[in-house]
Amino acid sequence: MESRHYIRFLFFFVGIATLLAITWNNLPYAPPDATEDFDCTTYSSWCTSKNRFQSKPLKEPAKSTSHHHDHASDTPHHPLDPLTVKEINRVRTILTSHELFKNSFPYAFHSITLQEPKKSLVLNWNKGDSLLPRKASVVARVQNISYVLAVDLTTEEVTVHETDSSSGYPAMTIEDMTSSTWAPLADEEFNRTILERGVDLKDLACLPISLGWYGEKEENRRLIKVQCYSMKDTANFYMRPIEGLTILLDMDTKEVLEITDKGKNIPIPKAVNTDYRYSAQGLHQRMKLINPISLEQPEGPSFVIEDEHLVKWANWEFHLKPDPRAGAIVSQARVRDPDSGEIRNVMYKGFTSELFVPYMDPTDAWYFKTYMDAGEYGFGLQAMPLDPLNDCPRNAHYMDGVFPAADGTPYVRSNMICIFESYAGDIGWRHAESPITGMGIKEVRPKVTLVVRMAASVANYDYIVDWEFQTDGLIRIKVGLSGILMVKGTAYENMNQISNQAENLFGTLLSENVIGVIHDHFITFYLDMDIDGSDNSFVKVNIKRQETSPGESPRRSYLKADRNVAKTEKDAQIKLKLYDPAEFHVINPTKKTRVGNPVGYKVVPGGTAASLLDREDPPQKRGAFTNNQIWVTPYNESEQWAGGLFVYQSKGEDTLAVWSDRDRSIENKDIVLWYTLGFHHIPCQEDFPIMPTVSSSFDLKPVNFFESNPILRIPPNVEKDLPVCKAAASA
Amino acid sequence: MESRHYIRFLFFFVGIATLLAITWNNLPYAPPDATEDFDCTTYSSWCTSKNRFQSKPLKEPAKSTSHHHDHASDTPHHPLDPLTVKEINRVRTILTSHELFKNSFPYAFHSITLQEPKKSLVLNWNKGDSLLPRKASVVARVQNISYVLAVDLTTEEVTVHETDSSSGYPAMTIEDMTSSTWAPLADEEFNRTILERGVDLKDLACLPISLGWYGEKEENRRLIKVQCYSMKDTANFYMRPIEGLTILLDMDTKEVLEITDKGKNIPIPKAVNTDYRYSAQGLHQRMKLINPISLEQPEGPSFVIEDEHLVKWANWEFHLKPDPRAGAIVSQARVRDPDSGEIRNVMYKGFTSELFVPYMDPTDAWYFKTYMDAGEYGFGLQAMPLDPLNDCPRNAHYMDGVFPAADGTPYVRSNMICIFESYAGDIGWRHAESPITGMGIKEVRPKVTLVVRMAASVANYDYIVDWEFQTDGLIRIKVGLSGILMVKGTAYENMNQISNQAENLFGTLLSENVIGVIHDHFITFYLDMDIDGSDNSFVKVNIKRQETSPGESPRRSYLKADRNVAKTEKDAQIKLKLYDPAEFHVINPTKKTRVGNPVGYKVVPGGTAASLLDREDPPQKRGAFTNNQIWVTPYNESEQWAGGLFVYQSKGEDTLAVWSDRDRSIENKDIVLWYTLGFHHIPCQEDFPIMPTVSSSFDLKPVNFFESNPILRIPPNVEKDLPVCKAAASA
Repeated sequence: MESRHYIRFLFFFVGIATLLAITWNNLPYAPPDATEDFDCTTYSSWCTSKNRFQSKPLKEPAKSTSHHHDHASDTPHHPLDPLTVKEINRVRTILTSHELFKNSFPYAFHSITLQEPKKSLVLNWNKGDSLLPRKASVVARVQNISYVLAVDLTTEEVTVHETDSSSGYPAMTIEDMTSSTWAPLADEEFNRTILERGVDLKDLACLPISLGWYGEKEENRRLIKVQCYSMKDTANFYMRPIEGLTILLDMDTKEVLEITDKGKNIPIPKAVNTDYRYSAQGLHQRMKLINPISLEQPEGPSFVIEDEHLVKWANWEFHLKPDPRAGAIVSQARVRDPDSGEIRNVMYKGFTSELFVPYMDPTDAWYFKTYMDAGEYGFGLQAMPLDPLNDCPRNAHYMDGVFPAADGTPYVRSNMICIFESYAGDIGWRHAESPITGMGIKEVRPKVTLVVRMAASVANYDYIVDWEFQTDGLIRIKVGLSGILMVKGTAYENMNQISNQAENLFGTLLSENVIGVIHDHFITFYLDMDIDGSDNSFVKVNIKRQETSPGESPRRSYLKADRNVAKTEKDAQIKLKLYDPAEFHVINPTKKTRVGNPVGYKVVPGGTAASLLDREDPPQKRGAFTNNQIWVTPYNESEQWAGGLFVYQSKGEDTLAVWSDRDRSIENKDIVLWYTLGFHHIPCQEDFPIMPTVSSSFDLKPVNFFESNPILRIPPNVEKDLPVCKAAASA
Repeated sequence: MESRHYIRFLFFFVGIATLLAITWNNLPYAPPDATEDFDCTTYSSWCTSKNRFQSKPLKEPAKSTSHHHDHASDTPHHPLDPLTVKEINRVRTILTSHELFKNSFPYAFHSITLQEPKKSLVLNWNKGDSLLPRKASVVARVQNISYVLAVDLTTEEVTVHETDSSSGYPAMTIEDMTSSTWAPLADEEFNRTILERGVDLKDLACLPISLGWYGEKEENRRLIKVQCYSMKDTANFYMRPIEGLTILLDMDTKEVLEITDKGKNIPIPKAVNTDYRYSAQGLHQRMKLINPISLEQPEGPSFVIEDEHLVKWANWEFHLKPDPRAGAIVSQARVRDPDSGEIRNVMYKGFTSELFVPYMDPTDAWYFKTYMDAGEYGFGLQAMPLDPLNDCPRNAHYMDGVFPAADGTPYVRSNMICIFESYAGDIGWRHAESPITGMGIKEVRPKVTLVVRMAASVANYDYIVDWEFQTDGLIRIKVGLSGILMVKGTAYENMNQISNQAENLFGTLLSENVIGVIHDHFITFYLDMDIDGSDNSFVKVNIKRQETSPGESPRRSYLKADRNVAKTEKDAQIKLKLYDPAEFHVINPTKKTRVGNPVGYKVVPGGTAASLLDREDPPQKRGAFTNNQIWVTPYNESEQWAGGLFVYQSKGEDTLAVWSDRDRSIENKDIVLWYTLGFHHIPCQEDFPIMPTVSSSFDLKPVNFFESNPILRIPPNVEKDLPVCKAAASA
């Protein structure tokens, strides 16, 4: 850190006199300095939310249902609780005095998270037991070498594992990202290029773009590409690309290795109509379409959160924590059986393991854009504080994240996750007797769910990830895409300028000089299902046409369900087929219902889009976890990140696809299910300048898990239970 | 109800000898006679809801937002308004004095609906213009011949078209259905069989089951099969089948043609745990999982309904009406352009055209169960009054249906459709600047939608159909399945009794002696899209892998969007393929956006399941409209019902598949899009004794229809707009 700061510092005062002076005076942000103590009020764009850990209570007022408090005194209560402020500080203290770090400058902590205790120990732990030994798992870069360390917080023992850079690099730190966006300013040619493109340096906004891996040239040093935009007259600089300009940077030294500018003839799109902030809309343009509407619970929410992380709602309970890489992690999801009263295991752990977002433009400034947001940027690191009343309804509870900065000091990401009950007016179950029987029965139950939400803003894009729990035992995992497109500048202002039918825009002309480039989104979920215990089997229930024999029936055909237990991993590499359908069950082969069906859950696909890239294309090798929609692997502590532990500049040697091809046995074993949600996105003008949310989801659904409908006995709504409300103004 | 109890009572105390006479005298449905006034309080199970048209106001209290009133004085305001009570009465008066009916007994009206004026006339009609001439379209059976009649309500002119029974029969009347369930009681052998199966006649419940078409034997007379259940000790008789017993009946004469009993060895499943009514749950078994939660709008809903049928909400307006066959019909859906302020056409007409529900059991008592619920039973006729607070939230408005009984007298189906605003806590669009740029921007807009809902109870099953309008221009069409499975009795009580692996249950053992038989649901929607005018084109935007040339790029491949305009119907017969994906646009080829993209909407598939039955299997020929997931046909007034106008016992000669195979031109023409939602349903124990709702949906989504995000300028929620609520008890 400091050395980089020093370089920049030097640069600004020893550089080319006039230009630099001007630059300095017109910078949109102040450059970093060498102060030891970070002060969010004056410093650093990455802690704009002003909530870096401080010993004073946070200023942002807590919502009524929020247990906001001073995280300084947090202590863990559950074996899976994330590291606290005190624990992260302790790890830093232990490591900075460790010989690896003591005299080794520079170094940076890329991640300091709980090293979860062995699954068997967690499963046997009960509330009231003494806490299992706390350990931290640390990823650090020391003098340009990546290490994975384990730190025992009790014994202070440190285990060091040095890794080989050929297998990729750890996720960037926020400091890597922000400093990379500044580094090109140290390059005279860069500054000249920007000015030549008609952009004042004070209007410059640059983004750090992970560059994938495309061969030897891009090995053995940590690289990043930087592309820039004009933020003149708009907060939405993403719509004003300085097209074709790409800076290749050494991320460790911040040296500019290459500047490519193939966009000199491409104008920067205009700012008009790009700003999306309400404050930027003309008063007469604002549109109020809807009267206020609110989810109201006069008796309060139906959930409690014990010890900050244990959520209990209706018939569910689960552990929930923020994670810098995955975003939100749901652990030990368990549901109460209405017959036995027993709380039953469903899922040991579930989270967003990796994303893969390849753009579909093979030209110089675009081909490398094949983001893997969790392993490259940190899906949780990019999850900003949620906006109460808009990101989540009024009845939401908020949970903070505590993450380490690159120097190991903890900071608080407040309101990172919200938990709320939702009622959309939907129906849990119903039956009315029809006029045919005329029995006059009408029984209807409303559907109320519990939603766990986080929203990650990976630069332009916003991903909204919901875990929605239903009382009938179903878990819906939903991803919403919003935010801002990554667009390409073009000389075209109208489609009528394109006479050549073969002309390839690689996307849609969204506005004058703006192309929305076609891209895919894949979001791969790790789902360690534990149906009534860890040893489970994966069963494909294939739906097959059966032809009848002559004379057997007036029917020629019908459908039959064939159960096929997957023996090994390759049996469970699933490409979905509309005309060869199946259900996909995770069952406990040793536990049966009263009438003898194995208890299970099924994954119900939804939001399906397959990756169509060439399997040998470098980005597809790295994103090979999208080669199938479903995979099942035997549980292995080290196989959690579908793109590999170190994804940055990886070659795809440590992906889910590689693990699965080992074809290990998965029958009646502790198994992990992987599901990938996919989206093909051909942008359209409605996505300009900011996209209405597009969502897809898949379900984990009980299938012969319960003896019968688990919500048979819930009551209907009655008028006397509902609230009496007034408009706030009249109240 | 009362009459049935009386009958059952009689059965036990009067001998077989007098049975026939008594049955006749006490038939729940009296053969049509000349009485002018039906009285629901003493008569007929099919008007149990006691809301058959009366001149007094209905007793059921209207919801606060409901415009409940005396339908006697209803007058039409819009050319598409359904026939009023007065108009139906007038049709009946005209027809009963018409020579076809005057001296022709028996006759029955199967349908009396508005004959919509020509589309061009409706499109040119504006509020304030004099109403277009009102005509009724009538389907009647007179002396066992089916007629389609047009009745001009002004001139009283009647046009008569006699149809050929080989093309099928009209949907059953409610009277057909109820009388068929009683008719077997007139058969001594039937009664003996029931008693032999251990069922008291007073506990008997029977269902009328459309029998499809399986060859010549089943032609030239209107037939129905009847199967029966024991309702002893449960309201959920569906779970107590008298398995294997099937009665073949002539629906016109009510003659029992055949009694088959292949289930003598199959016990009737027990009643225990089958009743789903809240009142039937033991007090100590009831489960209250959730505190009250309610959607509250202190300033009232944001929509108005003008003249009973014209819905105006946010930027949308559309005409909405109940229909006895389709359920709900949405017409002239139009959305306001935020830039021009103009209201723009999106869809001329959309509705549930047909359902196809084949069961997957080829044995004697099951093979024929291949329901087509709209054309056989009347999807709207089976839509019962919605349950306020449970079927729809508190803020709902309810709309009544007015339908004719078989003798032509109108009755009111109250609360058949509800309209409400929904807010689930979802996000319309959002962007937060990430730590990378640290710009401190967070702009989020909540998503509020308008839902139009109806729920049809076709005997056991409940279909919930939602049309959900979003302010961003999207229309989501969602179908929820709930209600009760059609189950099969079996001698098995446990799966461990099945030693033979090849044994085919045709489903899942749900409880002792109960099998949930595998089946599919297909729901086919008619969507007459009119994107800024009637002449549109259908464009397949195929997403294709493009390989790069050597040296062109470090990338080997990317995806490209190829636009292919469908010239004729066969170009638009679409089977969806995960690995050959496409978008499906309906565009206006003569209208372009500012930057030159054709304005359009796309259909976004969801809830896909394909029919896998043999194309030559009789049910699949009848349900051939499920051979593809998407079809496009040129607009043709007579092509609205995907299974044909007369579906009952049809051979599949008048389906969408047949029309489409004419391969007419569809480019730059008034076109109709057809989409089929599909579900494969392998029942599981959670579906017993009543199914938690399973939903699927597809979207109609603007694609370059607007110049930019149409909800850019809507405000976020702020605390001061939200209500102040108290629990009712404390209020």
